[in-house]
Amino acid sequence: MIVILKTNHSEEDLNHIIEISKEMGFTNHVSKGAKKTIVGVIGDDSYVSVDRFENLTYVDKVVKVLKPYKLVSKQFHPEKTVIDLGDGNKIGSGFPIIAGPCAVESEGLLDEVGSLLSQLSVAYLRGGAFKPRTSPYSFQGLGLEGLKILRKTADKYSLKVVTELMSVAESDMVNEYSDIIQIGSRNAQNFRLLEQCGKLSKPILLKRGYMSRTEEFLQSAEYIMANGNPNVILCERGIRTFETITRNTLDLSIVPYVLEESHLPILVDPSHATGKRELVPSMAYAAWAAGADGIMVEIHPKPEKALSDGRQSLDFKQFEQMKLKLDRLINAQVL
Amino acid sequence: MIVILKTNHSEEDLNHIIEISKEMGFTNHVSKGAKKTIVGVIGDDSYVSVDRFENLTYVDKVVKVLKPYKLVSKQFHPEKTVIDLGDGNKIGSGFPIIAGPCAVESEGLLDEVGSLLSQLSVAYLRGGAFKPRTSPYSFQGLGLEGLKILRKTADKYSLKVVTELMSVAESDMVNEYSDIIQIGSRNAQNFRLLEQCGKLSKPILLKRGYMSRTEEFLQSAEYIMANGNPNVILCERGIRTFETITRNTLDLSIVPYVLEESHLPILVDPSHATGKRELVPSMAYAAWAAGADGIMVEIHPKPEKALSDGRQSLDFKQFEQMKLKLDRLINAQVL
Amino acid sequence: MIVILKTNHSEEDLNHIIEISKEMGFTNHVSKGAKKTIVGVIGDDSYVSVDRFENLTYVDKVVKVLKPYKLVSKQFHPEKTVIDLGDGNKIGSGFPIIAGPCAVESEGLLDEVGSLLSQLSVAYLRGGAFKPRTSPYSFQGLGLEGLKILRKTADKYSLKVVTELMSVAESDMVNEYSDIIQIGSRNAQNFRLLEQCGKLSKPILLKRGYMSRTEEFLQSAEYIMANGNPNVILCERGIRTFETITRNTLDLSIVPYVLEESHLPILVDPSHATGKRELVPSMAYAAWAAGADGIMVEIHPKPEKALSDGRQSLDFKQFEQMKLKLDRLINAQVL
Amino acid sequence: MIVILKTNHSEEDLNHIIEISKEMGFTNHVSKGAKKTIVGVIGDDSYVSVDRFENLTYVDKVVKVLKPYKLVSKQFHPEKTVIDLGDGNKIGSGFPIIAGPCAVESEGLLDEVGSLLSQLSVAYLRGGAFKPRTSPYSFQGLGLEGLKILRKTADKYSLKVVTELMSVAESDMVNEYSDIIQIGSRNAQNFRLLEQCGKLSKPILLKRGYMSRTEEFLQSAEYIMANGNPNVILCERGIRTFETITRNTLDLSIVPYVLEESHLPILVDPSHATGKRELVPSMAYAAWAAGADGIMVEIHPKPEKALSDGRQSLDFKQFEQMKLKLDRLINAQVL
Repeated sequence: MIVILKTNHSEEDLNHIIEISKEMGFTNHVSKGAKKTIVGVIGDDSYVSVDRFENLTYVDKVVKVLKPYKLVSKQFHPEKTVIDLGDGNKIGSGFPIIAGPCAVESEGLLDEVGSLLSQLSVAYLRGGAFKPRTSPYSFQGLGLEGLKILRKTADKYSLKVVTELMSVAESDMVNEYSDIIQIGSRNAQNFRLLEQCGKLSKPILLKRGYMSRTEEFLQSAEYIMANGNPNVILCERGIRTFETITRNTLDLSIVPYVLEESHLPILVDPSHATGKRELVPSMAYAAWAAGADGIMVEIHPKPEKALSDGRQSLDFKQFEQMKLKLDRLINAQVL
Repeated sequence: MIVILKTNHSEEDLNHIIEISKEMGFTNHVSKGAKKTIVGVIGDDSYVSVDRFENLTYVDKVVKVLKPYKLVSKQFHPEKTVIDLGDGNKIGSGFPIIAGPCAVESEGLLDEVGSLLSQLSVAYLRGGAFKPRTSPYSFQGLGLEGLKILRKTADKYSLKVVTELMSVAESDMVNEYSDIIQIGSRNAQNFRLLEQCGKLSKPILLKRGYMSRTEEFLQSAEYIMANGNPNVILCERGIRTFETITRNTLDLSIVPYVLEESHLPILVDPSHATGKRELVPSMAYAAWAAGADGIMVEIHPKPEKALSDGRQSLDFKQFEQMKLKLDRLINAQVL
Repeated sequence: MIVILKTNHSEEDLNHIIEISKEMGFTNHVSKGAKKTIVGVIGDDSYVSVDRFENLTYVDKVVKVLKPYKLVSKQFHPEKTVIDLGDGNKIGSGFPIIAGPCAVESEGLLDEVGSLLSQLSVAYLRGGAFKPRTSPYSFQGLGLEGLKILRKTADKYSLKVVTELMSVAESDMVNEYSDIIQIGSRNAQNFRLLEQCGKLSKPILLKRGYMSRTEEFLQSAEYIMANGNPNVILCERGIRTFETITRNTLDLSIVPYVLEESHLPILVDPSHATGKRELVPSMAYAAWAAGADGIMVEIHPKPEKALSDGRQSLDFKQFEQMKLKLDRLINAQVL
Repeated sequence: MIVILKTNHSEEDLNHIIEISKEMGFTNHVSKGAKKTIVGVIGDDSYVSVDRFENLTYVDKVVKVLKPYKLVSKQFHPEKTVIDLGDGNKIGSGFPIIAGPCAVESEGLLDEVGSLLSQLSVAYLRGGAFKPRTSPYSFQGLGLEGLKILRKTADKYSLKVVTELMSVAESDMVNEYSDIIQIGSRNAQNFRLLEQCGKLSKPILLKRGYMSRTEEFLQSAEYIMANGNPNVILCERGIRTFETITRNTLDLSIVPYVLEESHLPILVDPSHATGKRELVPSMAYAAWAAGADGIMVEIHPKPEKALSDGRQSLDFKQFEQMKLKLDRLINAQVL
């Protein structure tokens, strides 16, 4: 930690800082410049709050030297995390695709989707049984019934189920029926839910909060890992900005950054990021080119009849064409 | 709802839209312009999703005519909501001040604060027993022990307790020990928690999500009201922007907007908004001038020793001076 | 400047940094922590770019210690700048109001406005002769004709003219006809125009860019001062955020911050910030309470007929009521 | 244009709206719903301001039906614009690369760069002779001397010159020495400069403002085209958001959107967007995959010695590797 004092500090102020740093178990190093005095507080400050120093009226600025996470960091875990879902399905290796409708609307719908995924060799089926909705009056999902439909469909077509968990109360249920548990963007800083995820047995697909900085996103992953679950899959899904042509702004730069910073796999969800189906395929190709570990997209046999988010869902033909091009990109082995 | 078709739509497309609107129970009105065809879908669209129309490939844009909330709206409840806490304490009338430390650190600290509030005729004591922290390694609060200290202090000095609820699991406990239950900014779209708040007996102080648009903020309040609790107090606490001198950007314009749009009281929290104690008093005066129903601020006898957020806490002397000036502003009766 | 090296740097890397800092005329101070090596580069770094160090592959982060401006800073000019416009009109003292229509539409309009201002003892008349418009097809202003109308009206009613300068080519003309020259938000980083303002004789009212951080805003003021014009008036007018109920988000926290940081006066423009007339009076009172040095508002006798920005213009009656309340606030002498 | 009235409007208000729409040359269509009255104002509203209706106190909302631009739109110019620079160099076809240092620092530097570009078959040399800098004390470029060096180098190696124009005063000079004139992000709404670009003979590479919505970006291009220059090249270079790991957030979704909406070519600048050289290659590949018409990157033989923006410059080896991979992607012909 580096503590920069205000120009007009007293000798006593400086001594006080030295005392505090000793009290916290750190050594220190004072450097007096032409105009500014700086105290280097030496020691592992990863998990130490800057509060004790920032609070002081004669302190101008406090700079942390180490990152505020450890378990998610490549520094402490250099090998890439590869999550094995069984039956040859891995996340963190290859370019897996997770696809399905926004919400589990009916068994018939899921069967249509499952059949298509199976034909196209797409191994992961997504669908929401519990839907977080901005309005209390919107469709909230089928709940347990939806989970059962997901499981049944997945078993029939040898798929893996990815579905969202919205609250601690439903965690055992979701853990039982799913293969991967998704934490949605609005719950990215629901810390109790993240703690609970740490205690579950299934891998967690953690969506980036639409207002989370990358550092906060990684700290949310740290919450899960610190509570005992090492299998975290990150997922970029767009952030809120002033731009209005897309629902959110897909931040693809996070992909190469995270690949350098963390050992965790990172997927991209171009459907929620753009909110417009016509932009999804291009962003899927771009995600692959940026180095992402896979994508998650919404599909629906009749998007114009979807109960939610139909505007961003690909129909089956669009999805098939996109899958074909992605295969060609991957097989060309040029990156 | 107004549906604007793309320039090159067919007659069949138009008929399809008319059919859907009938299917949804609406009448409609077609208007063909020089270049664009527009369909007015007539009926109460408050809670109807635009999805059914937005999904259609030949639709350019869908505009909702009515607001996506009802219970929070002044239109359906013209009289201002005044929440009576007993002992002459009301929110929604006058300019109440809620003050206290960020976290309940110890009984001694709370006693010091309680004593000051009592002397200054400030009726509401705040303090966190459960602390949502970005890092899993930061101080997480004293929990139940903290709630008990809050209650004991409040009872000793005849104060009302305002404290945060972080999860459904702790809701009975927090409901028991508090007078007003706070929902924090990071939980503003934790819908399960909002639903639970609807079932509790105490008033809910709902902080604006730092990423919430006003419309979403009001919809979060609607969640609580639609689940049975009519006593919601809104609280503006800053939004995330590109500016870096303050922790968030205090959005005071929301105050007159909400006063016009809703019957719910709205407070302002200048401490979390600015993150800097030296900016807090000015923003408190500005909140009053903007028409807010009160403020919520952090105070600490020794901010430099606070376990969290000391940087934004006023010390007792600063708080006293601010209280004095606020009293003078209010008593001048000029606005 | 503080240079933090990456964990795996070599001894050679460290020596290279020391060399560079010497080459730049600085002394330095090396501090080796448990995991990180930090070099304090000692000397006046106000105007030194961090580039030389940030460029190095083995450098993790560079932190500047001093602020990137000098002339605007209170540190080098402790007394408040008060700009004397003559006839007893000063900016930086009292709470002056600048009012007028968005655009100079006709002599008749300006005469109506001038007459009102004179009656209400408002000394500053604003109006745009050159209008920066997002669309090339919108009304662009009357140009020189507009300037002449402004001057004539101001002289008739003993007012001061505030009007916008959009380009270097028109600077002599605008300097001649105005008393205060406004630089608009979209030109906040039009550096050639700022340089030119430094050479003009009239005070400059510099609007904050709707995308400018406070530090950048102050650097834009520094541009003008460094080019020779010490009379700069800052003006907060809202920043672009994700909120949509207001056109921009008025950032009042900048007022107490700037008052502490700089000697320059700072005004607030609630009209452009909110974009809605019904929010303007509340934000004007809040600006006063926050400590602003004055306000700038748009008024129009018939806002529904204004050629631009009518939605945010107060009509005469609304303006008069607001002026009355502001006078009462100021005269109460409570802050 | 669609005008939505407030719930409590009178019959007179409605008549007034009808009158205004007639006065503006439009026909109209009234639709009375259960709660809301809506007036469809029928006619070409592309360039008509919503002000006349928004101004009215009894109007709730005004929705424009047509886009606020025409010349940049694909609707009025379906064929893709391909700009022929001569010698077989085209923009809007293939995947051209523009590369060079941030600033023209010396003839030696440019010669090194020119030689490399020539070897790698990269046809466009960029470099700033006039540098817009946030601080008045930073290096401002070599000016005319820089332009001459650029021209000389380009001619020696058969390259095309891309360089920035900062002000109307320098436009003839820059037009003379360059092949493509760049308008920087901070001047994206410097309307006088855009008008001037309309009168120049060279194609204009228009960088997106870092705070411009896509619609505003296209309107800036419309300014240039409406003033007479049809050769506009758009360039996405990142927008300002709350994320801090990158300098700006690269918004790649704009690429497929613009390709659908406009006939103009669109390039991507991953250097300014990310501000970090290690993220540049991934974002260059992603730009290609998203469908961009080319990229613009900063390179420097010794980034650690660059006078500006070295942190984001690729060194020669990194650039060569990136070029190699881009060639492989393009040649695989899979998208």
